[in-house]
Amino acid sequence: MIPLEPHRDERASMAPSAARKLFRQGLSVPTAGYAAGYAQANLIIVPRELAFEVLLFAQRNPKSCPILGVLEAGQTSNELLPDGDIRTDLPKYTVYQNGQKIAEPTDLSEYWRDDLVTFIVGCSFTFEAALIENGIGVAHIDQGVNVPMYKTNIRSASAGSISGPMVVSMRPIPASQVADAVCITSRYPAVHGAPVHVGNPEEIGITDLGKPDFGDALTIPDGTIPIFWACGVTPQAAVMESRPVLAIGHAPGHMLITDARDSMYQVP
Amino acid sequence: MIPLEPHRDERASMAPSAARKLFRQGLSVPTAGYAAGYAQANLIIVPRELAFEVLLFAQRNPKSCPILGVLEAGQTSNELLPDGDIRTDLPKYTVYQNGQKIAEPTDLSEYWRDDLVTFIVGCSFTFEAALIENGIGVAHIDQGVNVPMYKTNIRSASAGSISGPMVVSMRPIPASQVADAVCITSRYPAVHGAPVHVGNPEEIGITDLGKPDFGDALTIPDGTIPIFWACGVTPQAAVMESRPVLAIGHAPGHMLITDARDSMYQVP
Repeated sequence: MIPLEPHRDERASMAPSAARKLFRQGLSVPTAGYAAGYAQANLIIVPRELAFEVLLFAQRNPKSCPILGVLEAGQTSNELLPDGDIRTDLPKYTVYQNGQKIAEPTDLSEYWRDDLVTFIVGCSFTFEAALIENGIGVAHIDQGVNVPMYKTNIRSASAGSISGPMVVSMRPIPASQVADAVCITSRYPAVHGAPVHVGNPEEIGITDLGKPDFGDALTIPDGTIPIFWACGVTPQAAVMESRPVLAIGHAPGHMLITDARDSMYQVP
Repeated sequence: MIPLEPHRDERASMAPSAARKLFRQGLSVPTAGYAAGYAQANLIIVPRELAFEVLLFAQRNPKSCPILGVLEAGQTSNELLPDGDIRTDLPKYTVYQNGQKIAEPTDLSEYWRDDLVTFIVGCSFTFEAALIENGIGVAHIDQGVNVPMYKTNIRSASAGSISGPMVVSMRPIPASQVADAVCITSRYPAVHGAPVHVGNPEEIGITDLGKPDFGDALTIPDGTIPIFWACGVTPQAAVMESRPVLAIGHAPGHMLITDARDSMYQVP
């Protein structure tokens, strides 16, 4: 039986392992607000023969693809999800065949192969807690929706057969707090760090903020500037363009909840 | 005809491309003191089927193996050596078969295959310039020898079939300048960053500072503390232990001279 979603307070105070267990049992909801203080992460999973190109893509695009951990072929957990199972512990996945999305399953039993390699990629949810602690509101949390994400006209550095556009997440920030938001997020290089663009969405190829490519549209509060951070969905955009035979990601907003504390990824 | 080694002043003021040309023509000498202000780099070259494991090894051991660039299979240059050729532009290489050193050629024509992937790894020579500018002497430069390097009892994080000990370079620093040396080098994370150990060589398995595993022994000045930095020879120590069919490195001290300025790798 699929568990019910816990109450908001209960979600926030949950241990990462308890949250992963709920999702393993079939609960399929966005993970924002779960296990406060623990890092959430993006996934990109590919067959072993593509693993070098994907890791090289990440190495060449550290702002969008900061690697927190790698599960080698056959491995299904590591210290980021002790006693966990990467095939079941996310609330929802996205499966691509030849660059086409073919399914959004809640577990991967139907698609898993022992030659699959999993890349665990930092997520900007980690620095949102720091923004809020410093008095900077995060609009999509206030509005109870998923963060809006956009494909841009900024090209990722390619690696072998893998190339594609940089994907960014957007947060509207009051003009008086833009500098603070830049400084605070720059202290989290392992989870995308400082923004890649401040203001002027057209310049990076975003013509309508109301139509994100992933996640939800936001009501943009008056007096705010749209700020763009590199996003861990970038490997999925590359997969959609480069069309490898098989690739699996998390479903946007439906992240891996890790045992690593957000504070671990802060630098001085 | 093999060119003669230029005079010391001429070596320092040489452009990186001019230095690479000398080595391409057959000059085989240590590279310390050439092209001042430009980053020198370690190499590790392996067949394509080992490339994922080596890149993952680097990702898991960022202090010893900071990647500055990767030449994919078939590539022999990139922006770090424009118009250069990785097969000829180092003064000396080390070739390993099944973990055994079989040759130290001055070019790779005899060993090159189109499936070889080259990893260009940061080198602590880059932060030595910053130490000297800040009034901290570098003993091996003063003594005109190669920096001493040691295998330690610190295990690198393994990746697939690749595992081995961390290799460190050692610089004796006056006790009053140890803190400064730590702070200055911590600003260069892409070239090994802050030390991994200060004092007590026995604790990391070094029983005799006078017998380095790579490079030269130093006269250790009175009143100095031995400081240890992670070293880009670490992948070669892993190759010696893990015994892949073929791997190629630079010969210790005989580095790739890149077109990247040392200052590029400084963080605030």
